Amino acid sequence: MKGLFITIEGGEGAGKSTIIRRLHRQLETDGFDVLATREPGGSPLAERIRELILNPEHTEMDVRTEALLYAAARRQHLVEKVIPHIERGGVVLCDRFVDSSLVYQGAARGIGIAEVRAINMFATEGLLPDATLYFDIDPETGIERITGHKGREFNRLDRESLAFHEQVRAAYHSLLETEPERIRRIDAGKGEDEVFTEAWTVLSEYLRAKNYQAE
Amino acid sequence: MKGLFITIEGGEGAGKSTIIRRLHRQLETDGFDVLATREPGGSPLAERIRELILNPEHTEMDVRTEALLYAAARRQHLVEKVIPHIERGGVVLCDRFVDSSLVYQGAARGIGIAEVRAINMFATEGLLPDATLYFDIDPETGIERITGHKGREFNRLDRESLAFHEQVRAAYHSLLETEPERIRRIDAGKGEDEVFTEAWTVLSEYLRAKNYQAE
Repeated sequence: MKGLFITIEGGEGAGKSTIIRRLHRQLETDGFDVLATREPGGSPLAERIRELILNPEHTEMDVRTEALLYAAARRQHLVEKVIPHIERGGVVLCDRFVDSSLVYQGAARGIGIAEVRAINMFATEGLLPDATLYFDIDPETGIERITGHKGREFNRLDRESLAFHEQVRAAYHSLLETEPERIRRIDAGKGEDEVFTEAWTVLSEYLRAKNYQAE
Repeated sequence: MKGLFITIEGGEGAGKSTIIRRLHRQLETDGFDVLATREPGGSPLAERIRELILNPEHTEMDVRTEALLYAAARRQHLVEKVIPHIERGGVVLCDRFVDSSLVYQGAARGIGIAEVRAINMFATEGLLPDATLYFDIDPETGIERITGHKGREFNRLDRESLAFHEQVRAAYHSLLETEPERIRRIDAGKGEDEVFTEAWTVLSEYLRAKNYQAE
């Protein structure tokens, strides 16, 4: 494959979407053919699967069912969108990929990382991102950004959420330790311009190191 | 678990549905608490997943996406329907289970049996049926039963279908060899009454061997 597959990971309130939009613009300005997409979804069938997962009426959904549905949506999105764009030599910026399933379903929901990795290896046939930008944020700051509640105003749901997101963060940090070459940490606690500059520096260094240039 | 989990397998035109209805009636007559169900589906969420799989508009569906969706539907059906009934001490008669995915997606569609087994182990957490009745039929006879076409009238689609169903049958036969204790072959080429009698004989011998009685 000639192109590049970049994934963006991180907890809630890390500001991924904003930075992805800016990276997308910057890459296009520099002449790259960019597809910015997200997980799950991005193709009609994958979007239908996404609707099933996110439908709040499905309160009975088992956590393993959910993990299998994410893997199914991921497979379809990969085959229909990601792989064709990479094969044409383009850059794919994908908001969440396998790492999200490992930390959310595998670690925080308690299925186990190895088991969730196995069904995702089936879905991806072993395809890994070329590089992953991990937007790291203190969960309390992330929740404050989303809910507008500050430390003393945290309600019960915020507290539950905090414990959950601390598990998610710890799991991301273990992945970072295991794959320091692929996963690069970005400090997402700073202001937007600083976060963008750090992300762009990491990404453009990566492009240079791979000698990957716009055609 | 106190109850019994029986699965029914076989190719097209093997007459599974008819025999399942008769086994269901006979078991109820003998005082057993029976749930007759089918794969995929049987619970509202699993039925929604089934609709996605079977919707003819989804021509772009990748074979691995399909296998993951079957595994997701299976998981949900197992958790919502099968396991609660077995835990209450009942008998579950399930039309298709993991073996169908192994032979259809794993063997005939070419993904590989070991890979499809792995995602199904994830879905079932290793739960196997207590016994499986495999309705074995010569594919040509099975297709004749479904289409009404006889050997010389076979059209192109029937021929394609024949090659596919021969792969399915060969894969079922390998499973039979690997797990002769769990999987019992029923000759489904005979008339309905004979097939039912053979199936009932195998099933009631199994109930006796396990000393499993109606309450």
